[in-house]
Amino acid sequence: MTQRVYNFGAGPAALPLPVLEEIQRDLVAHPELGTSVLEISHRSKWFDGVLAAAEYNLRTLLRIPAEYHVLFLQGGASLQFAMVPMNFLPRSGPGAEYVVTGSWGEKALAEAQKFGRARAVWSGKESGYVRTPSPHEPAYLPGAAYVHYTSNETIQGVEFFEPPEAGDAPLVCDASSDFLSRPMDVERHALLYAGAQKNAGPAGVTIVVVRGDLLDRVPEGLPAMLDCRLLTREHSRYNTPPVFAIYLVGLVARWLVESIGGLEKMQEINCRKARIVYEALDASGGFYRGHAEAGCRSLMNVTFRLPNEEMEKTFVSVAKSRGMIELKGHRSLGGIRASLYNAVTVKAAEALAGFMREFQAKHV
Amino acid sequence: MTQRVYNFGAGPAALPLPVLEEIQRDLVAHPELGTSVLEISHRSKWFDGVLAAAEYNLRTLLRIPAEYHVLFLQGGASLQFAMVPMNFLPRSGPGAEYVVTGSWGEKALAEAQKFGRARAVWSGKESGYVRTPSPHEPAYLPGAAYVHYTSNETIQGVEFFEPPEAGDAPLVCDASSDFLSRPMDVERHALLYAGAQKNAGPAGVTIVVVRGDLLDRVPEGLPAMLDCRLLTREHSRYNTPPVFAIYLVGLVARWLVESIGGLEKMQEINCRKARIVYEALDASGGFYRGHAEAGCRSLMNVTFRLPNEEMEKTFVSVAKSRGMIELKGHRSLGGIRASLYNAVTVKAAEALAGFMREFQAKHV
Repeated sequence: MTQRVYNFGAGPAALPLPVLEEIQRDLVAHPELGTSVLEISHRSKWFDGVLAAAEYNLRTLLRIPAEYHVLFLQGGASLQFAMVPMNFLPRSGPGAEYVVTGSWGEKALAEAQKFGRARAVWSGKESGYVRTPSPHEPAYLPGAAYVHYTSNETIQGVEFFEPPEAGDAPLVCDASSDFLSRPMDVERHALLYAGAQKNAGPAGVTIVVVRGDLLDRVPEGLPAMLDCRLLTREHSRYNTPPVFAIYLVGLVARWLVESIGGLEKMQEINCRKARIVYEALDASGGFYRGHAEAGCRSLMNVTFRLPNEEMEKTFVSVAKSRGMIELKGHRSLGGIRASLYNAVTVKAAEALAGFMREFQAKHV
Repeated sequence: MTQRVYNFGAGPAALPLPVLEEIQRDLVAHPELGTSVLEISHRSKWFDGVLAAAEYNLRTLLRIPAEYHVLFLQGGASLQFAMVPMNFLPRSGPGAEYVVTGSWGEKALAEAQKFGRARAVWSGKESGYVRTPSPHEPAYLPGAAYVHYTSNETIQGVEFFEPPEAGDAPLVCDASSDFLSRPMDVERHALLYAGAQKNAGPAGVTIVVVRGDLLDRVPEGLPAMLDCRLLTREHSRYNTPPVFAIYLVGLVARWLVESIGGLEKMQEINCRKARIVYEALDASGGFYRGHAEAGCRSLMNVTFRLPNEEMEKTFVSVAKSRGMIELKGHRSLGGIRASLYNAVTVKAAEALAGFMREFQAKHV
């Protein structure tokens, strides 16, 4: 049997081994079905149950109140960048306020500006996206349509541990890369969305949590597939949804509930993993230089540089030969990025930290 | 090991057993990767190869000329219903002409009308969607932006075996439910699109084949995820694509090339399966009444009624007890629908025909 490597990929990312094993076991013929889950109707009673259980477990994990809807859509966060303003940014008024702490926030803002008034109320761009603002740093316009932020910037490795203080404005969060990695205060948000391919499942499904009253804003005449009110009314099944990807999200959510014991426990494990890697970084005397400022550095994506690019290349390739893959930083930023999503084990983090120390010893 | 049933579902539909077995074998750790394909980066060299091979096999199967691009997108045909007019329907001019032969054509037209001038140049609605028009029946406006048709209407079971004659207008085809089931003359089209979940793969990926010159029409300012020119330039990877679903489409395409021997062979098998079922229907002396007119009836979706609804319910439930599932017609039409997509075997078609004869004998 093939040995599994340690996968530090930023997404699509590692999935929990017990989930993969369950999928493998039932892949050709699920015992309740006599077919593969890849072949099952999205209108079947069986899939009704899959959807309901996935939603139930997500509600349990995140304590999602009843007035919020849970949707399973397609197109990733990138499509939400457009859907959020199309659905919730009125044609007139003070517009939407974007707190931009990295590359994804920038992209979200650029899409919003195609549909209405939207601006970067705060941007970390000039300082190289190394931090999040303090709670009262952004000066929002009164009556803003909504305030948007990115809870974790996957490329820069900058994370909010508390949502920004948005006053009366509905708070919208792109939670793609820390969704389900820790408890989140859903009630402080009007809308959260997340591509699943980090902590929640495979690429190909997007989870949207939206407060019911926000749907009153949806204008008439949107394309059906982009109309949040319609998609809510149809319970994510206006058309054929990505059945298998949703099934997988359901298995991951169940794993979080039953095997991990909830998001507080998951957070403990994620903190432990991050500490293991950041300690190796901090103890390196500047050999490894972290990108983000200490208070904002991500538990999910540890981004750092080595003394030079040549050494970074060597680091990535030697690590690969030791069974640690996907450590190359995003092409826009360079350097190293180690993603420590839920399914990356403590053992994997320890292996990486050990390798960092060993590599440094050889190359100083 | 669980016995596999005969799955006559209209989509998500049966997949080829050898493809499922290959996926199962490699599910936890693909030997070339050390991870699951569910966990692999869309920017990895390995996935470059998957994408290239999938495209190559599709080009081989359909003889797609070099000036056409092949895209793997999300959102199903339903999102294409909006993307086609957003990208290719100019704000002024004679508008788009829709040949409407069933429920999906109706939906495609309704979306187009949100963006510009579009009309049903021909509709089978009043006669209950039982046929396709003859080649010169629709009277297109000169200079139409494009002519749109649905090569196979999944709900009604009405199929075009030759594309409509569209003159100089670019011909656009929703080929969702007969794509890869038989050869198609790509060169007569400017654009073909297909949700994969019938003959080409699982739910969650849409294949688009678009002629390069059509992209000159794409207006500025579209949402990035709906901008065909951008998606083409980024080779379907503007954002994270549905990696696993694309991998699966690649395996199905390879199966069609290597195990079946191409689309002419696939068509032979599909004709044989359809003949087996339609013969049982035609020989029933009116016990089974087909929906579509003989010359237009679909090779993919055999739609028919029994003498009454009670008997239809019994038919579906007894069939299920014999291991033949998903025979219930679409909720909008009622009756019975047996989908005979590529991965449904001749043996399955024979089992169904045998059951039809037996059921009739018991219930006349």
